[in-house]
Amino acid sequence: MRVAIAGLGLIGGSAGIAWRAAGHTVVGYARRAETRRLALERGAVDEAPETLDAIAGAAVVVLAAPVLAVRDLLARLAPRLVPGTVVTDVASTKRCVERWAGELLPPGVAYVGGHPMAGKETAGIEYADGDLFRERTWCVVPPAGAPGEAVQAVTRLALDAGSRPLLMDAVEHDRAVAATSHLTFMAAAALCETVVAGEHFREQAAVAGSGLRDTTRLASGDPLMHRDICLTNRDFLVQALEAFAERIGAVTALLRSQPPPEAITGGPADPPAAAGLERYFVDLKVARDEWLSRPVPDRPA
Amino acid sequence: MRVAIAGLGLIGGSAGIAWRAAGHTVVGYARRAETRRLALERGAVDEAPETLDAIAGAAVVVLAAPVLAVRDLLARLAPRLVPGTVVTDVASTKRCVERWAGELLPPGVAYVGGHPMAGKETAGIEYADGDLFRERTWCVVPPAGAPGEAVQAVTRLALDAGSRPLLMDAVEHDRAVAATSHLTFMAAAALCETVVAGEHFREQAAVAGSGLRDTTRLASGDPLMHRDICLTNRDFLVQALEAFAERIGAVTALLRSQPPPEAITGGPADPPAAAGLERYFVDLKVARDEWLSRPVPDRPA
Repeated sequence: MRVAIAGLGLIGGSAGIAWRAAGHTVVGYARRAETRRLALERGAVDEAPETLDAIAGAAVVVLAAPVLAVRDLLARLAPRLVPGTVVTDVASTKRCVERWAGELLPPGVAYVGGHPMAGKETAGIEYADGDLFRERTWCVVPPAGAPGEAVQAVTRLALDAGSRPLLMDAVEHDRAVAATSHLTFMAAAALCETVVAGEHFREQAAVAGSGLRDTTRLASGDPLMHRDICLTNRDFLVQALEAFAERIGAVTALLRSQPPPEAITGGPADPPAAAGLERYFVDLKVARDEWLSRPVPDRPA
Repeated sequence: MRVAIAGLGLIGGSAGIAWRAAGHTVVGYARRAETRRLALERGAVDEAPETLDAIAGAAVVVLAAPVLAVRDLLARLAPRLVPGTVVTDVASTKRCVERWAGELLPPGVAYVGGHPMAGKETAGIEYADGDLFRERTWCVVPPAGAPGEAVQAVTRLALDAGSRPLLMDAVEHDRAVAATSHLTFMAAAALCETVVAGEHFREQAAVAGSGLRDTTRLASGDPLMHRDICLTNRDFLVQALEAFAERIGAVTALLRSQPPPEAITGGPADPPAAAGLERYFVDLKVARDEWLSRPVPDRPA
């Protein structure tokens, strides 16, 4: 199959490597000449034309850019696409892209959204890796009434990247990732803001360990990607943040309800009030350990 | 030096291995026979007596247990200790332990608190590792008026475990770790509660990735250790949680102030309101990346 990729960053480049290995012909476009050169050098593309025109003849066109940039790509590509082309993307939210595709694409050009659940903190073609999607979920998100062949083509590409395709609609997708992915980077960001960017961190850094480093890892992700996600998944993300704030409030209240440290005598005579606190941590450990012990695809690879 | 360790879990066992390698004689006590057998087998101790009596003659006695269990150990050891002994510990909070030591230890027995900034999600002597403390900060926390020789003995043990000793007082210690360590596991726990233990996680798990796994990692830590920290550092932890909740509230408000997704046109015409959101993520990425690029000891090893 002739596959065109618009945007040769970490995701586009990694997909190109994987799809070429699976036997597809990959033509890739990037604005910067240096990116196109690197894509050829790393084997992410068979051809790297200088203009978007050259990618318009492919069977499937993959838009590999952050959400807001996808709209711009759709607008520029729309007049160049011929009937029968399938357009997909790899952006983090799906409702907006689906709406833009409906507004901008010409008749006969089908859109089916895609979202591979993979990434790194290191963006760019330099870090492209043909195994990035292996064993990961790749959400396939067709609009209502999308042609079966278009859904199949996108599903085929997910499989050929080594992923497990998972069919869902855009609302379902955006609601699920708001909790599992978007709230997660917002929590990492807010923790980073409170501690690492806090006014006392200069003195505190010497006692900061790998826990803080790992729990804030996502705060080093791509700021534009995070911004675009916030803008295009605002409603579900606000709901998730509200649920999170409510949990923070509840556990803070549980702490306040404990006896003061002066009353703690330790040893076997632990205050019974502490039992609720102990159960809180036991229940969460059990929930998390159970999740991570499940067979793929219910846990991250 | 003859060093006694009461409690042969991950921390006590790892310290024993490191201190023996540095030339100390290590005698270790654990309640369970199986733990004592494993400690001998793994080379964490030279001797593993069955009773606390046998460890009372050491130059330094190290209490290696979660905070509340340290009080019990102090009470049981106190009548057995001879003047000139130095008592230290490795517990996560220091104000309570310092107070208990002052109340319980006999005259002539000096207490100097300790806290190595190291750990794993896997508890127990089975995971003991002589390199666990290498390049880590080891807080040395003397009460007001502690004898210089006692401070030096504990500092020596920190150095001999491969750590960087850092002198501070108990209030300073508890305030700093409330932010860098205790708030961090509470944030991981609350995120785990909201998402992984949430009512929709069964359906969402397929789109959950390594970001959620890593950001919630600390929620799989030892529930008793977490409970004890909450009880003995309640005031500073509540303050840290309040600051965190305030940051969550502020970024939620920033999200609500953005234009609705329907108004987003993408591409170069990004809404100017989004600039604040972009700056938020850029600033945090800069702060975190700057932290992790600092030379040791200002970043986690």
